[in-house]
Parts: sequence; structure tokens; C-alpha cells
Amino acid sequence: MTATVDLNADLGEGFGAWSMGDDDGLLSVVSSANVACGFHAGDPQIMRRVCTIAVARGVALGAHVAYRDLAGFGRRALDVPVDDIRDDVLYQLAALDGFARAAGGAVRYLKPHGALYNRAVDDPGAASAVVGAATDFGGGIAVLALPGSELLRAAAAAGLEGVEEGYVDRAYDDRGRLVPRSQKGAVLHDVDAMIARTVRMATTGTVAAAGGADLDARIRSLCVHGDTPGALDMARRVRAGLEAAGVTIRPFTA
Amino acid sequence: MTATVDLNADLGEGFGAWSMGDDDGLLSVVSSANVACGFHAGDPQIMRRVCTIAVARGVALGAHVAYRDLAGFGRRALDVPVDDIRDDVLYQLAALDGFARAAGGAVRYLKPHGALYNRAVDDPGAASAVVGAATDFGGGIAVLALPGSELLRAAAAAGLEGVEEGYVDRAYDDRGRLVPRSQKGAVLHDVDAMIARTVRMATTGTVAAAGGADLDARIRSLCVHGDTPGALDMARRVRAGLEAAGVTIRPFTA
Amino acid sequence: MTATVDLNADLGEGFGAWSMGDDDGLLSVVSSANVACGFHAGDPQIMRRVCTIAVARGVALGAHVAYRDLAGFGRRALDVPVDDIRDDVLYQLAALDGFARAAGGAVRYLKPHGALYNRAVDDPGAASAVVGAATDFGGGIAVLALPGSELLRAAAAAGLEGVEEGYVDRAYDDRGRLVPRSQKGAVLHDVDAMIARTVRMATTGTVAAAGGADLDARIRSLCVHGDTPGALDMARRVRAGLEAAGVTIRPFTA
Amino acid sequence: MTATVDLNADLGEGFGAWSMGDDDGLLSVVSSANVACGFHAGDPQIMRRVCTIAVARGVALGAHVAYRDLAGFGRRALDVPVDDIRDDVLYQLAALDGFARAAGGAVRYLKPHGALYNRAVDDPGAASAVVGAATDFGGGIAVLALPGSELLRAAAAAGLEGVEEGYVDRAYDDRGRLVPRSQKGAVLHDVDAMIARTVRMATTGTVAAAGGADLDARIRSLCVHGDTPGALDMARRVRAGLEAAGVTIRPFTA
Repeated sequence: MTATVDLNADLGEGFGAWSMGDDDGLLSVVSSANVACGFHAGDPQIMRRVCTIAVARGVALGAHVAYRDLAGFGRRALDVPVDDIRDDVLYQLAALDGFARAAGGAVRYLKPHGALYNRAVDDPGAASAVVGAATDFGGGIAVLALPGSELLRAAAAAGLEGVEEGYVDRAYDDRGRLVPRSQKGAVLHDVDAMIARTVRMATTGTVAAAGGADLDARIRSLCVHGDTPGALDMARRVRAGLEAAGVTIRPFTA
Repeated sequence: MTATVDLNADLGEGFGAWSMGDDDGLLSVVSSANVACGFHAGDPQIMRRVCTIAVARGVALGAHVAYRDLAGFGRRALDVPVDDIRDDVLYQLAALDGFARAAGGAVRYLKPHGALYNRAVDDPGAASAVVGAATDFGGGIAVLALPGSELLRAAAAAGLEGVEEGYVDRAYDDRGRLVPRSQKGAVLHDVDAMIARTVRMATTGTVAAAGGADLDARIRSLCVHGDTPGALDMARRVRAGLEAAGVTIRPFTA
Repeated sequence: MTATVDLNADLGEGFGAWSMGDDDGLLSVVSSANVACGFHAGDPQIMRRVCTIAVARGVALGAHVAYRDLAGFGRRALDVPVDDIRDDVLYQLAALDGFARAAGGAVRYLKPHGALYNRAVDDPGAASAVVGAATDFGGGIAVLALPGSELLRAAAAAGLEGVEEGYVDRAYDDRGRLVPRSQKGAVLHDVDAMIARTVRMATTGTVAAAGGADLDARIRSLCVHGDTPGALDMARRVRAGLEAAGVTIRPFTA
Repeated sequence: MTATVDLNADLGEGFGAWSMGDDDGLLSVVSSANVACGFHAGDPQIMRRVCTIAVARGVALGAHVAYRDLAGFGRRALDVPVDDIRDDVLYQLAALDGFARAAGGAVRYLKPHGALYNRAVDDPGAASAVVGAATDFGGGIAVLALPGSELLRAAAAAGLEGVEEGYVDRAYDDRGRLVPRSQKGAVLHDVDAMIARTVRMATTGTVAAAGGADLDARIRSLCVHGDTPGALDMARRVRAGLEAAGVTIRPFTA
């Protein structure tokens, strides 16, 4: 038996003259790219570039959809009515697909970003709106989301593929939610521990919560970060660690 | 023999809380809708609404692509490099198509707006960039443009359908270009004269220039305006005048 | 004894090619103008125009400060950290003052708009941030706010003048808060009833709550709306009604 | 006799989550800070931070005013009508002054950025509009500009102080204009040559053109760049070289 997992990361998060992260570096580590679509970051030039490289390397393309908030990078809760969320997500998803198709690929999934991601964990209306955009778009868009989230429930209800994701460098509480960044120990820094934990998630479907208890963690994708040089190196080591443990990295869409 | 012509107008040019023109009214007059895509005007909510009504009424959908300039409504010349124009246009075209498809239709053509329209008349690089976006997008997007323009030449060179458009209320100079709005007589106001001239364009393929000479005007689409209550009424009268003269109004895509 | 009251309204809420309301008409009705500063609406051209007319007519100028959300017109709750609110408000206040001074006047007060207004009613941190911007700016900026709000408390704590405002066309609950627009009877439509109630507020400092009980309503400014032709006419009639009852309309800053 | 010169640099060019350059590092090198005001870069949080540090260190504050073009970083020519330029510049200048005053300082000068800088070299209408904004603002705003430019002429005509600036790392043609970046040799890279040339400009008021001829270069301010780690180090070495040659660095406003 061979364990398989997808690695996803946020990409294309520059805007105009501003860059963020190392898109090229990450595109040689991950198997799925969450591409910013212009609402929290990203612009048409960056979107084309990321799509072109991703398609050339066999990296799956996902729309990293967000609130319209460049100044806040999509991280600030914004009380967008759910009908408007559906429209805003469809706009971003369709725009990205233009570049995916121009590169010979297609958008295969979506993942909400930042404050919209957090809202779709617990708010059924927002979750349905995000999924509704995928349904509007058609073509079987998968939905990448936190295990146990409303977003996964909404995807299932709509007949879309939901993909559970785990976090390489974030602690979980006893309910399986991410420990808020404001709390001590929320973000892991020891790469060896990260690798061990990640291999365990990928091979056994379990992870230790911050309190010590074992959690069910049957995830199909692992989120790595790459917005600093150190983070990129960490992502590379996590990938190497998974491969050394016999885990195959490939897009969940494959 | 029955003459046939398309009527097109700019639609969906509100933004957020701001409205412009009477989209509903115009969608009962025109056969093709040039829909703003968010760069000079338009937002996802408006785009969905216009697409839904247009598809229900059999009005063809076109992407009214523009420079990214909400503050200037896309009317100010902006020195965007041609490679970036291609990206910016593809983004808008693809985003609109998401709403067109959600409504059961598809984007069938594009038309540049404002300053980008003017640039694509004379600038071969910009014209090729606009056409390149349509080629990237695929699916046989037609290009609505001024007769004699670089944009039509670029469309032909790329194997795309070019559609010549005439103006119902604008005077032409002896070369067939629009008389600039800054000059006296540039905009016609006598609706009866407009109708007579429009019928002549649609049935004989000729139009009188401001100087009196007859111009070749084999146009397949006529642009009407509707951003004021008076303009909408004028558009209705032009349509009625054409129909009274036996001209059939239907999308050029039909 | 002569009763005196200020009339304020939201002005300058267009953006670029889009207009909203009748700034000229309102500037002949009100004594204080809450001028949009570019974050929810308004642009430098509109700001100059409103300031110029207001100064010429003796209308006091206030900064109508908001969240940065053109697409949502500042009406959507946005979780801006309080330190950032202080910066965002200072930016808007100072920008508007440039036009006020160019017109020979000065910004005399601020009033938060939309979702920021609502937040500053109950959130002491946000209220302090708004007031902090006024303190940063200096020169004794007054603060226009709902009676009983955190914003008035914060203004008092900072030694700034707080100005209680009442609403001409909104129902109050028994605690003196505005009945939410989503509830029946939240917005008054009978102009004669509005005038009677407004005169009573201005002359006796009391108003009847929706439930019938008398509320303390010692307000110094009354907010009228003018974003529709009907609303402007209503504002004119309210002003005329107040004057007919012997109430003097003048800026609270006078 | 002691030579004195000002060193200026562009600062505060991040936006939201995106950073650019090393503001802290540069603020320990320059004597004048051209602060982005939100139209091409910069946001209220960054503006406050730069103003606070600059005032604490005795660095003079200037408004780095630009076209409204975040996506293009203000580098793309934009055909803004001159009356609108005046408004747009006043908005930015006044907004920045709010933060300057909050920090205990004041904006002392303005310098157009990017495409607006280039336009104000040759376009008298644009130059007058920029100067008009400074006049509107009042308080004796100086204008930092290229020697021989329309902008300096407009400043003189309006009775404002014009300050000639030279470039540490850019070649001049025989007319004293900057050699366009697209040409070979436009940007100098040899720091020792830069220092020698800069010392000569500061002490003798002359500089060698790319063709070899001596140009009159009586400049009062020298522009250094700092948007890369290497550039910051270069700026430090230029400052040290000037000081080693006995040149005093201080704000031209001192």
C-alpha cells in the first residue's frame, strides 16, 4: 500500500509592482496551486504567469477566492451578503479559468482565502454561496476545505467533491480546529516535528491535538506556506520528508 | 430581400451603489449587449443581472473590456504595455463568461471601451493584444469594431470574425472616422434624421459624411446609447424606425 | 426664546462618472454638509466642488469618514483593527480639509458613515479611534453622533465637542436607538408627521418612541436625506416647516 | 566655504500587506523623504509610520504625488485632465499633511512621481496644475523638480520655491535630461564613480553629460534610491562619500 497526498500552497499573491513569496520556488514543491484572483491579491499578469508555469509542471490550479479587499489582503472579516459572495466568487473563479485555459489547463478546484475561509467554516449561508459559485461555473470544481467545516457539508450537498486539508505548521485543538494564531503554540517551528506529524497524517490519517489527544485527520491535501524564504525551505524539507517516508505527492485531482 | 442589422449598446455600467443608464429598458431594445466587466464599471452583481436578463431575452452577450480605471470610467488614455492589455482583456472576458454561462448563455464577442477602443483603432500592437485575449479565450469570440480599424485587421489576421459597427448618433468625417465630440455637429440630435440615416446604412450600406460625401458603410451592427432617459427613448424610436422600414433587428451572432 | 437647530445631510457621494443625490439642491437646504472623502464615495473633483459651494453658502463642512469599501459604499461591517481606523479616518479628514481650505473654509466636524457609524455607537475601541484621528488632526474638530453612543463618550473624554443628532425620518425604539431598517415602520414617510415631530425635537427636546413613550431628544442637529428627488423635496419641506414654527436653522458650529 | 546638499528618496511605497524598500534604513540616510500618498502606493498606516520616524530624525517631509494607479504603480502615462490633476494632487498633499502634523511636523514640499513627474517636465498645463495644488494648500510648499523643467517654471511663476534635483545614479544627455532607462548606460552602477560625480555636483555645480561635456548642475537636492538592499547600501556609501568630502547633508528646507 502506498500513501498519497497533495501539497497545496497560496500563490500569485503579488499585485502590480509588489511581490509576495516565491511563486517559482513554490511551484517546484507543491502539487496544487491556490492562485489569487485579484480580490485580495493577484493581477492578470501574475495570474497568467502562475497558470503557465503550473500547467507546464503538472501542478493543479485552484481559485483562491476572497473578499474584495486589497488594502486588507482579504484577512479582515467583511459582511458581504451571501448572494453577493456567490457573485464575487464566480467572478474570480471564471477570471482565473481564462488564464488556466490559455495555458492549456483548467481550474480544478477553489479554496476561500483568509476571512472568507474562516467564515465558510461556520456560516452555512456563506458556505452555500461559495459552493453555489462553483455550481454556477460548472465542470466539477472541487472544494478544498477544513475537515468538519460547513463548506465541506455544502459541497457534499451540492454533489461537488470536497477535499479535506490539513496544515503542516498549525496546531489543532481538541475539536480539530486550528488554534488561533493569537495563542501560544499555534504555529509550529520545528521542521523535524512537522515532518513527523505530516508523515503520520498522510500515512495513518491521525494527528495529535495540542492537548495530546489523537484526532481523526484523514486529509487529502496538506497546506504549506511559502511567503518567506525560510518558509519555502521548510516546504521543501516537508516534501522531501514525505517522499523519504514513501509518500507520493500528487494533485488530489489526479 | 430583407435587410438585417444588429443593435448594440453599453450595459451594466453601474458600480456598487451607483447606477448608470437603464439596463432593463435597453435590454428590450438592443439585440447585443456590451457588458462592463469591472475595470471601468460593472461589478459581479450587475454582471449576473445583465447576463440573466439578456439570455432570457435572446440578447447576445459581449465583453465591454476596458482599462483598469474606475475613477476615469475607462475614458482616459492609459499607457498600458500591450502584453498587459492582453492579460487585462482576458481577465475581463473570462470573468464575464462565468456569468453568461451561469445564465445559460456564453460571451459571443468583445468590444473595447472608451480609451482602449480609441487606441485599438490606430495602434496595431494594442489591437493585436485585444485580439490575442480573444484567441487565448477560445471558442470563436467575434470582435466588434470601427470599419477600417487596426482592430478589425488584427481580428482578420487571427481568423476571428470582425463585425463592423456604425453609430446612430455620431457624425463621420470624410475618412469614415467619428468626428471628435469636441467639434460642432459631432453628435446628432434630430431623431428623424438619425432614423433616416440608420435605415440607409442598414439597407444600402452607405452613409453621408459630415462634408456631404457618400461613404461606404457596410456595417453589421449599430451602436445606440442609453445612459439617459432621453437616450433610451431615442434608441426605442430608432429601433421602431428600422422595423417600420422593414429592417430585421437581430444579433449579428444569430 | 428662539429654538435653533442644525440640519445635516450626506453630500458628495458620487464617484467619477457616477453621481448620487443632488448636491446643489441639498446645499441650499442644510446648514452642515457631511462630505464623503473617497473611501466609501467621493473623489477629489467632487470634494472640491462641494467644499466650494458650501463655503460660499455658509454651510459648515464635516468629514463623512468611512471604511475603505467603494464596492459596498461603506455599508458593510469590516473588521478593521482600531489602530488602523484611526489612520484611515485621519487620512480622510485631512484630505477633505485641503479642499475646505482651498475654498476659504475648514473642516469643522466629522461624522462616521454607514457601518463605521454603527460600530462607533457600541464599540468603545472604534469610538476612541475615530476621536483619536480628530485629536491627531487638531484644531477642535467636533464629532456628530447618536445620543448615548460610545462615540459621544469618547469625544467627551478627549475634550472634543460632541454634537447629538436626531433623524428626521427614522423611528426610535424605547432606548432611543434607531429602529433597524429591516423592521416595519423604521422609516417615516408622512412629511407632515415628520415636520411635527422635528419641530417638537427642536423646541422641546423630546420625541415619541415607536412604542409611544416620550424620549429625551436634546439634539443639536437633524439629519435629512437627499439621495432621491423625493427626499430632497422632503428635506425642503422639513426646513420650511421648522422655519414656519420659528426655529432658526444654522450650523451647530456657528 | 562649506558645500551643503539635501538627499531625497522615495519612501512609504508599500501597500497593505505588501512592502517595498527599507523605509527605516533609508530614513537614516536621507534628509528629505518623498512619501507616497496612496495613489500609486502608500496607505494611511505606512504614511503615519514614515512621518513619525522622519519627524523624530529631522528628515523633511514631502508629498510624492502621483496618478491614481495602484496597479501600475503610477508609472503609466494617464491622460488626466489638468483640472483633475490639481484636485488629485491637493487630495494627496493634504492627506499626508494630516500624518505629518500628527507627528509634530508638516509637509514642506511636493514631488510628482513616475509618469506625472515625466509629464510635468514638458507639459506646462500639468506643471501649473501640480503647482496650483500647492498654492491651494498654502503654507509655502516647495517643489522638487528637474532643472529646466516646466514644473520649476510654474513654481517660480506662482511664487513658490523651486528646488533643483540631481540624480546620483542616472546619466544625463547633453541637454541635461535623464538618459532614458531603455538606453545603454542610463543607470550608473560604479559606486565610486557615483560618489565622485556627486561630490562634484555638490561642490562645483557641474556634472559630466554622457557625451562628456560639462553641464551646469547647480542642484540643491540629490535623489538616491533604496528599493533594494543593494541600493540602500549604495545610498549609504554616497552619503558617507559626500561627508568625507566635507559636504554637509541637510534638508533644503532647513
